[in-house]
Parts: sequence; C-alpha cells; structure tokens
Amino acid sequence: MLIREITVTPVAFRDPPLLNAAGVHQPWALRTVVEVVTDEGLTGLGETYGDLDHLDEVRRAATALVGLDVYRHNDLYAAVARSVGDAVVTDRHGLIGAATREKTVDRVFSPFEVACLDIKGKAAGRPVVDLLGGRVRDAVPYSAYLFYKWAGHPGEAEDAFGAALDPEGLVEQARLFVDRYGFRSIKLKGGVLPPMEEADGIRALRDAFPGHPLRLDPNAVWSVETSIEVGRALDGVLEYLEDPTEGIDGMARVAAEAPMPLATNMCVVTPGHLAPAIERRAIGVLLIDHHYWGGLLRSSHIATLCATFGIELSMHSNSHLGISLAAMTHLAAATPAITHACDTHTPWQAGQDVVAPGALRFVDGAVPVPDGPGLGVELDRDALAVMNEQYEKCGIRARDDATYMRAFEPSFSTRRPRW
Amino acid sequence: MLIREITVTPVAFRDPPLLNAAGVHQPWALRTVVEVVTDEGLTGLGETYGDLDHLDEVRRAATALVGLDVYRHNDLYAAVARSVGDAVVTDRHGLIGAATREKTVDRVFSPFEVACLDIKGKAAGRPVVDLLGGRVRDAVPYSAYLFYKWAGHPGEAEDAFGAALDPEGLVEQARLFVDRYGFRSIKLKGGVLPPMEEADGIRALRDAFPGHPLRLDPNAVWSVETSIEVGRALDGVLEYLEDPTEGIDGMARVAAEAPMPLATNMCVVTPGHLAPAIERRAIGVLLIDHHYWGGLLRSSHIATLCATFGIELSMHSNSHLGISLAAMTHLAAATPAITHACDTHTPWQAGQDVVAPGALRFVDGAVPVPDGPGLGVELDRDALAVMNEQYEKCGIRARDDATYMRAFEPSFSTRRPRW
Ligand SMILES: [Mg+2]
Ligand SMILES: [Mg+2]
Repeated sequence: MLIREITVTPVAFRDPPLLNAAGVHQPWALRTVVEVVTDEGLTGLGETYGDLDHLDEVRRAATALVGLDVYRHNDLYAAVARSVGDAVVTDRHGLIGAATREKTVDRVFSPFEVACLDIKGKAAGRPVVDLLGGRVRDAVPYSAYLFYKWAGHPGEAEDAFGAALDPEGLVEQARLFVDRYGFRSIKLKGGVLPPMEEADGIRALRDAFPGHPLRLDPNAVWSVETSIEVGRALDGVLEYLEDPTEGIDGMARVAAEAPMPLATNMCVVTPGHLAPAIERRAIGVLLIDHHYWGGLLRSSHIATLCATFGIELSMHSNSHLGISLAAMTHLAAATPAITHACDTHTPWQAGQDVVAPGALRFVDGAVPVPDGPGLGVELDRDALAVMNEQYEKCGIRARDDATYMRAFEPSFSTRRPRW
Repeated sequence: MLIREITVTPVAFRDPPLLNAAGVHQPWALRTVVEVVTDEGLTGLGETYGDLDHLDEVRRAATALVGLDVYRHNDLYAAVARSVGDAVVTDRHGLIGAATREKTVDRVFSPFEVACLDIKGKAAGRPVVDLLGGRVRDAVPYSAYLFYKWAGHPGEAEDAFGAALDPEGLVEQARLFVDRYGFRSIKLKGGVLPPMEEADGIRALRDAFPGHPLRLDPNAVWSVETSIEVGRALDGVLEYLEDPTEGIDGMARVAAEAPMPLATNMCVVTPGHLAPAIERRAIGVLLIDHHYWGGLLRSSHIATLCATFGIELSMHSNSHLGISLAAMTHLAAATPAITHACDTHTPWQAGQDVVAPGALRFVDGAVPVPDGPGLGVELDRDALAVMNEQYEKCGIRARDDATYMRAFEPSFSTRRPRW
C-alpha cells in the first residue's frame, strides 16, 4: 500500500497568555497537520509542531516518503533520517530539553508514522490502539493542566479563563477545569513565581482538592539546592516533581535527596539519554511524548524499556489539536506502563480544532478511546482552512515565549537556574 | 475478531545425538503446534516447546483464550498470566537459564501471540514482518550450528551427519552445512570437551573458513578463570563467546577480562535480568528468543531496549520446526538491531517438518522472508498427524539430555563449573 500524496498544512489557533519559565504563550499557537493518501485512496492524519524550521523539515520529508509502503515503518524512518541529514532542529522555547540529530529525526518522523497507523487501522477496520497491543483501559485519564496566567493578552479583553497569579486564582482555575472536564489529577506549570510561592499554590490546591494527585513542573529553572528545599517542603503533597532542575546530573542530585519521585520531559528526551539517566537514578517517571519520541510504535517500545527499569510513565503535552489528542489516547490506552494521568492542553484550546466534533470527549477527566477505525477522527476541512488562513495572517513563524514576554517585561530572562 | 477454537498438538521428530553441556539429544525432539481459529474462519499457527509441564500450561491457557479478540494482545497476555498463576515451568536440560514466573508466562503466551500475528497478517493481507515494522532485510542470515556428536544414537545405524568428536570432524560437519546451505557464520556448541580442546576445534574452523565469523557456546560450564583463559586464547578469533560461565556476576567478571564480547541466552532470559546485566556490563550480545521472551512483539521491544543500551542482538534456537523458523525470520527481518546471524537447528531436522514445503528455504545461508500473508507457511496435516503419532509412541515426555547421556556414561555430571 503505497503513499501517493502527502499534504502538509500549517495552522494557527488562539492561545491564552499562559506563563512558564520560558516566558508567556503568544496569542497564536502553531501546529502542522499532515495528511497521507495511499494508492488505494485511504487517508491518514498526523499532527506535529508548527515552527518554521521544523515545518521545513516535515515538508522535505513528505516529498521523500511519496512512493513508499505505509507498512514499511523502518523504511519510512530511514527515508526521514536521510531527508533530515545532519539537521538539528532546536526550539526557541527550550521546554522539551536538548535538541539532537536523533530527536530531530524522531520528531519529523512522528506525524507520518501516526498517519500511516491511521491508514493501517482503516485498512484492517480496527482502531489504532489495536495495532499497538489492544486497550488496557477504555478511557485515558488526563490531568487538569493549570498555568499561572494573565487575565488576557495585553491590549486585548480578558479571556474566558481569567487571571491566575496567586493561590486563589489557581484554585479557581482548577475548579473550572475539574467541574467542566472531571479531571482527577492536577498539574501546575511552575517556574513563574519564586518557588516557595508556587509551593503555597500547591498547598492551596491540596486543601481545595484533597483527593487529587498533584504535580508541579518549573521547567528546570531551579538550582539543585532550591529543588531539594522545595521537594522537602512539599513532602507528602506531590505525586511527582517534574523537571525541578536542569540536566541528568542535577536531577540525580535532587532525586537522591527529594522525598518524591522526579519526572521529566526535559533531561531524557531521546533514547541516548536513557542509559545515563538510569545509571544515575535521575528519574522516577518519564513523560513520554510521541511527537518527539518517534511516533506511537517507538514510544511503546520506550515504555517497555522504562517499565523494565522500574521507571513509571506519564505523558507530556504541548499545545495541540484533536489529531494529537486521538494519537495520545490510542497510545496510552495500549500501554500498560502509562499508569499516571497524562497531560493535555486541550481545555486551553476552548473547542478550536481541525477534527470534526464528536469523536473526542472527556468523561470524568478521561478521554474514551475513539471507536472508529484508525485514529477514529475526521478532518474538518472548513476548520482546517480557517486555521491555515490564521497561520498565514498571524505573523508568528516559531513559538517564542521569551521574546513575547520581553515586549511587556523587558528584563525577563530565561537564565537557568533562575532561583 | 474473536478466537473460536484452539488446537494444541504435541509432536515428536527424529533428532541426532548432539552433545552439549547438559548431555546428549535424545532420539526424539518434542515440540507443540498451536492452531488458533477465529470466528471469521481465519487460522493462525504457533510453535513452542513440547515438554509435558509446559504442554499442560499451554493447554490450560488455550482454554482461557477462547472468546478473546486476536487484536487484544495485552488482554491475551493477561489471560495467559491468570491461567499460569504462580506456576514456574522449569526445564530439565537447563540450557536456557533460570526459570521464573514471568518467563513461564512469556513462554506459554508466545505460541498464541505468533498465531494471532499470523491471523492479523492474513486479515490485512500482509506478511507478519509488516506488523512488526516492515523488513529491514529481505532475507535473514543464519549461522551453521555445529555440534560435537556421536556417529549415531547408540544401538542405531550411523546417521547422515556422521561423528564429530575432534577438530577434523567439526570442519567436515561445517563443510557439509556451508556447502549445502551457504552459511556465512559458524557457531560451535561447546561445553563437551576440555575447553582447550574446543579452542583447538575453533582454530581448525578458523583455518578452514577464514572469512566466517565464529562463535563458541559452552553453556556456562566453565569457571570464571577458565572462561577468561579460553577468551584470551581465542583473542581475535571469535565474533563472540557465548555463555562461558554461569550467572550475571560471573559473566561480568569474564566480560571485564576477555577480549571479545560475551553473548547470552542463559544469564539474561527475562526482563528482570536486563537491569542488573546492564549495570554490571555482563554482556555485549543478547540472543533473543521469542519462544521465551513473550512472542514477537515483546521481543521487538526488548530489541529496542538492547539497542538503546548498546547491546547487540543475535537470536537463540532450540530444536524447532518450520513454524518457528518462519516466526524467527519475520522477527529478525523487522528488527534493525539483530545484526548478527541468527542460530537455527533446522539442518539437523533433515527436512522433517509440519509446514508444507516451499515457503522456507536457505539462500546463501539466509532465509528469505516468506511472501505470503501472515507467517506465510501452511500446515502439512499429514506430516502433523505422523509427528503427533510419533509423539504418542516415542515415550519421551520431557527433554532430558542428562539422563539419556547417563544411560551410556553413568558418571556424567551436569555440575557447573565442570572446568
Ligand atoms: Mg514538563
Ligand atoms: Mg546458547
């Protein structure tokens, strides 16, 4: 079953001013939608980052894949590797760790792999989860992903979520998400306020939601000493502490002293990081992300590796649309080792999507695995056209939280450690 | 697609008197053939060990799997795990390492998983290799698997292979296999003669086949000191030295001193062994075997783990028939990390098989991946009936090389280390 044609479409959608260690989310978030069409007329969908350097590599790879067999996963990967060559695509935001050549191949390959799984599922009349081992859960639990945030983008009206700049604001935001989606775990994106103020935010969440596992993720802007101090201050309160400090060595030093497991989507982001992280006992939880771990099949292999070494699994998220949510859900549903609720930015998109409504929904904080063949989602071509037009007009070509932040706080620095 | 029926058939076939550290092969080798039939009438084949304790577990699991969905790999595994319960099936020959509960589940699950992959391939109209990632090689290289052997079973006529009890005999045997099958790698099963005599055998093979990578496998009957001594004596001659001594600790001590990589199918035989073996740097090559690593999909996950840690891969073999050869070939063809020629006992079966002729053949020492959907092999029901009758009549119910050896050499001991 040969690839006849691949369409690559960048899109932009509205994003609230979410604060993090890298700055603040710009008014538009970018993604790229990949459509693969076979010689038999089957179509598959993939979704990936929208930054221009990455988009260029995705477009180049798309050309290289035409004519290849959707079942030849290894051949497709090799073709992407050749297409990428020695390129290393680096994110300006720096929130998903170091860039390497292998990680670049993995992230360029990912949307094509997902699209081919979508096709193979449709060909077999089976959901993608069945091509990854079959479901071990009928619905995938996600966490309420809280952010410190401004009331609205500067110069614009207040958005539907309002401000969250103190413990009360966080609790209000959590209440909104838990009420609306039923989330049973809560994650706070930190790295924004002085660490002990963020710890106060966590304690306020603990008081308001005594039964919800809580996580805190400052994106590696704390020193080792600060990380240990905050870890001890939150003993018994956190399910895990995510990327408190930078690098495998730093994380290992924190892990040896902090009372809770450390999680990461920053110090272990490509296969080459696993051996040293395991040797140093740097992490207890890996946040897998098929967008940069080479797609769903490779992510499931990495999950087995982690399980074999006693590393638990959750799932990482950047701002994304429904194709990604479907792919994440199929992967997590098929992967026994993903025992922690997964992260998703979905609520922040407030219904904006390129997939037709109906296939994806939250029930008690979990997304039921779509029933249809393949990913089980369909493209909404009108929405895609609108979002592509937004991409053309928005003027943003790469996510850059720091520069946007500096428009309002000129002295803002992304120096690590900040505290 | 639900499992409607499973048939489990033990078979026996003639086996030559091959010598090893555990004793000598009995006149009959046992295997079990598994046939899975779905509600849509598709059939799938699997092959596993024939020892009675194992066969009982396979039969019990077969009952537990009826009614389940062939695509629900994880559910099928869970059902087998429940069926096995706390049972630990131990081999009398001890040639594939320690028995554990996890390994027992993995080996009982394996033939059903292969049969379900056969079915899923047929349903998709694709060879199994395509369900594991697609081929990275069109044909899988195997090694000439040499054994010290008697001319024939005591009391019987000389067999077609003749005796091999010294370097000349080994070279003659190698010549036969290389001429007939085109093998480009050679493995010698050792652990039979004093180690330096086996080293002489290896040197004779090196002289006769200067371009063939050579391996030696004494099945862990050497002491650490002897292993290091033989390793040094064969510096520059061996591709790898397989299981010279027992256990991860012993192997690690040898690995630190021997000049060539150590390989194993004895000290790392279940996921729980990987972490300590890697931490101790005990092995350079893992001989994967889907028969006890939980089937093809799990074996491919383990291959990724090994590749991530810089462990190379080959493939282990016990005496087997064509269903296993097909499964091994699909797995190795889809697994980039299996870079060493795989082991197979196929030549010793001298054409005896339960699969119909034509689908499997050796070309230049390699087996081309069968083209048909699924495994690409079909059951020869007449041959199956004959072999099942042989099973019923042969009187052997578990492989026991030591007891058979003691019938002729009463003082034979399987003590380790022997040298
Ligand atoms: Mg994170
Ligand atoms: Mg061996």
